[in-house]
Amino acid sequence: MSYIRCQVCGQRASIRMRQHRLNYCKDHFLEWMLKHTDSTIQKYRMFGRNTRVLVAISGGKDSLALWDILWRLGYHADGFYIDLGIDEGLDYSSQSRQFAEQFATSRNLALTVIDFKKEYGESIPTLAARTQRGKGKPCSICGMVKRHLMNQAAEQGGYSVVATGHNLDDEAAVLFSNMLGWNQTQLARQAPALSGRDGMAGKVKPLFRCYERETAAYAFLQRIAYIETECPFSAGSTSISYKHLLNQMEDRSPGTKMRFVMNYLKAKEDGFFHIENTNGQDEGLHPCPVCGQATSNPDMCVFCRTIGGTPPDKAYR
Amino acid sequence: MSYIRCQVCGQRASIRMRQHRLNYCKDHFLEWMLKHTDSTIQKYRMFGRNTRVLVAISGGKDSLALWDILWRLGYHADGFYIDLGIDEGLDYSSQSRQFAEQFATSRNLALTVIDFKKEYGESIPTLAARTQRGKGKPCSICGMVKRHLMNQAAEQGGYSVVATGHNLDDEAAVLFSNMLGWNQTQLARQAPALSGRDGMAGKVKPLFRCYERETAAYAFLQRIAYIETECPFSAGSTSISYKHLLNQMEDRSPGTKMRFVMNYLKAKEDGFFHIENTNGQDEGLHPCPVCGQATSNPDMCVFCRTIGGTPPDKAYR
Repeated sequence: MSYIRCQVCGQRASIRMRQHRLNYCKDHFLEWMLKHTDSTIQKYRMFGRNTRVLVAISGGKDSLALWDILWRLGYHADGFYIDLGIDEGLDYSSQSRQFAEQFATSRNLALTVIDFKKEYGESIPTLAARTQRGKGKPCSICGMVKRHLMNQAAEQGGYSVVATGHNLDDEAAVLFSNMLGWNQTQLARQAPALSGRDGMAGKVKPLFRCYERETAAYAFLQRIAYIETECPFSAGSTSISYKHLLNQMEDRSPGTKMRFVMNYLKAKEDGFFHIENTNGQDEGLHPCPVCGQATSNPDMCVFCRTIGGTPPDKAYR
Repeated sequence: MSYIRCQVCGQRASIRMRQHRLNYCKDHFLEWMLKHTDSTIQKYRMFGRNTRVLVAISGGKDSLALWDILWRLGYHADGFYIDLGIDEGLDYSSQSRQFAEQFATSRNLALTVIDFKKEYGESIPTLAARTQRGKGKPCSICGMVKRHLMNQAAEQGGYSVVATGHNLDDEAAVLFSNMLGWNQTQLARQAPALSGRDGMAGKVKPLFRCYERETAAYAFLQRIAYIETECPFSAGSTSISYKHLLNQMEDRSPGTKMRFVMNYLKAKEDGFFHIENTNGQDEGLHPCPVCGQATSNPDMCVFCRTIGGTPPDKAYR
């Protein structure tokens, strides 16, 4: 009987990656994922062996796979989980928190948990419901809150870099969205590694060259327990519909998503996109008088304004 | 009973254009198409009332609708049809030629026909089959031949501008393809109006702001007879698959295709795309020693090399 073989050992392959023209058995796939991620970290100068890295953990496959990989590669990577209080019906937040804590305990890793409702008095859905920006869907508010708390956690914990589990499918979908509307500022800014500046940690995406099915396969083969349901608010999002479209193109021509993202980065490197102030990130920024994070708003930053302007005594523990 | 009404006369609407938020009865839709196209011609300075315009006619709905509109608007627009000899099985070329000739006769318009097989000794499919570039599919060769013959016809007939029937769906699909691969040269160059230069007529697309369903509705309501089958070689093309994807997005959010193309043009106008030599179109170009058209090849142009290097005595009549 003929079957596809691992190109390292000749055993039966567990995964076939048409986009990379690679086939591996379980062990050699797991090994490849480590090497591939490490090479991304180095190629894009994301962080070094001695950098204290804060990994943003959602409890899903991507962030836990990333944390696992960084841990196995010997990086100094601690976790940070935000309990958003999205619990109506599905217990989404409490379940994902359990997966995050379980993972940290099993590997004896440090995980900082911030319980948003406990610290700020209301859950994300409640906060979104009472603000203009969150009407309809809380995704915009939620993203803003997560970015703020991540910066805060990095600053207070002395981490120079925050790593997120965004995979290639995520990157391609965001790029696709920015490109469809020719959103010039976003198009000029999207990057797998953004360097930090005063009061703002660097942001890196070490898995951005891994397809979603690769991070899923990694989590599965590494027996990582993770929350499999999506956030209940993500249903019907445009970002998910763009992923479907990109998958149709990928099916037709394997490697489409990778080429789309990599050729974009090449175009950017070639100086193809020209925009005022793309490098002048500090343009008009000043510290928020309440929390100290950089903001372009004349008074408080958006987070502090949304929350109500009075920071809790113990926003971070 | 309630139905959608024409916003001009209040009669029952024949067409609802969600992307423009416009509803019209037959007569006011036909009138709108004339105005809309004329405003495109003027806004993009495509040509004037006294310009001699050569319209590239395929026999399909778009090019015949365009010719009809230009004729009704009182522009000096003559037609040019290339019989490509794509006739196996479907009589595609001979049928579309009949539609072109019938249209010209009915309106007493001047149509120049070039019979490629008669002039150059072989049909496009035969030519494609014997050349490297045409292997698999003749589309690339066919496009190159059409561009060459159009330039030749414009030059020999004293037309300063060639108008093609490309609609918004066509423009969006090409842009989508260029963007997916971040084809920098093509991305920086795509435009609804390209000015001419020595030995090369200007190229304009007066229907580029009309959706395909609008040009189809125009042809139908104006009772224009046109070839309804697509070129047999276009089946399964990536361009058609991109149109399907764009239609999925359009269904989800009416106006997506229009915004995609218009925001791209705005980004280009803002100077968002930066590339060497985009304006230096003449860079490295010189006249082909056989036909005289501009080429960047050291010897003959691609057309003359493909054809065999000996121009027929009467390539144009």
